[in-house]
Amino acid sequence: MAEPKQERAVKTREAILYAAAEVFDEYGYTGASISKIMERAQVTQGGMYFHFKSKLGLAQAVLAHQQEFVTIPHGVPGLQRLIDLNFFLAGELQTNVLFRASVRLAVEQGDFGMRDVTAYQEWVEQFHSMLCGAREQGELLPDIDEREVANVLVGAYSGIQVFSNIASGRDDLQERLGSMWRIMLPGIATPQAIENLRIPRHVRRLAA
Amino acid sequence: MAEPKQERAVKTREAILYAAAEVFDEYGYTGASISKIMERAQVTQGGMYFHFKSKLGLAQAVLAHQQEFVTIPHGVPGLQRLIDLNFFLAGELQTNVLFRASVRLAVEQGDFGMRDVTAYQEWVEQFHSMLCGAREQGELLPDIDEREVANVLVGAYSGIQVFSNIASGRDDLQERLGSMWRIMLPGIATPQAIENLRIPRHVRRLAA
Repeated sequence: MAEPKQERAVKTREAILYAAAEVFDEYGYTGASISKIMERAQVTQGGMYFHFKSKLGLAQAVLAHQQEFVTIPHGVPGLQRLIDLNFFLAGELQTNVLFRASVRLAVEQGDFGMRDVTAYQEWVEQFHSMLCGAREQGELLPDIDEREVANVLVGAYSGIQVFSNIASGRDDLQERLGSMWRIMLPGIATPQAIENLRIPRHVRRLAA
Repeated sequence: MAEPKQERAVKTREAILYAAAEVFDEYGYTGASISKIMERAQVTQGGMYFHFKSKLGLAQAVLAHQQEFVTIPHGVPGLQRLIDLNFFLAGELQTNVLFRASVRLAVEQGDFGMRDVTAYQEWVEQFHSMLCGAREQGELLPDIDEREVANVLVGAYSGIQVFSNIASGRDDLQERLGSMWRIMLPGIATPQAIENLRIPRHVRRLAA
């Protein structure tokens, strides 16, 4: 039985988006080409242009789907969940090409003339809602602004993963994240909350 | 009187490097071209190729000279000097195209296939030596590792300036830096030291 037309179109669009992410992850925006992406997705020129008109359009779509490329684990509200999410994302950056491509485009977008803050803002919202959970649990210092902390965390995380990528291909990302959290916690959380929090130990990946 | 040959060559090299930084700042690596840089530097093709063989070579040179593009202010050893340096660099990012171009190349280098950690490492060394000064002044908490803090600061700063650039063209960089320092200080410095430190107030630039 033939697939309904609409369903097929959705599948094609998805296949293109995933192929684009893979190619951007491997070659960067500048090194990527529509033809490489078409080949990877096994779509025709007609199929490609029905969904995406340009490489820039593809990059915008991969960037816009950043949070869809990861499945954020459930958990009990509070700071531990935020810390665990940070370490979960580190693992995703090391193993999930779709998420990694999207983060790469977010950081390098200046080089191909984009300036889209959406991916950053969505993480600010995500971190902010977790910090609000921590506030309800009584874990935050009284004079801390949840939105301010969320903004600093997103910026700091973003730079630390770039530095880690250039220094070690992200091998030392968990180690650097652990340092970040140990330094930041006393300015965010009550001493009592800190005592109960666990910063995951760094397990160095085997060299690829 | 004609300039000695060697002196002229040094001047030409400098002019090319500065023109390259200007063009990279304006167009990014991918958008820049050797011919734009030659025109800006007012050098001939022969003059260019005597000093630099490729656009990549130019980008590597601009990246390698990052700390030469700023004059780090003198100051009394201690944390205040490190904080002041952070805010000084924010001003340089807003006004000094040469420094800004070099930082831009350091962040976006993945898109054109480079992976050079030198610029990051040099800032780690700079921040580390200032933290050692702070240690000698008795400002740091006993269990803090100066090198670990320097690494976190360089990564965090780098990402916060990227986020600020994408969000506001770096208009809000001082504000974001102030947040970062307020959050980080309790994990780095003694309460007594924090009492004496001044985090510069944010003065919003007029829109360009």
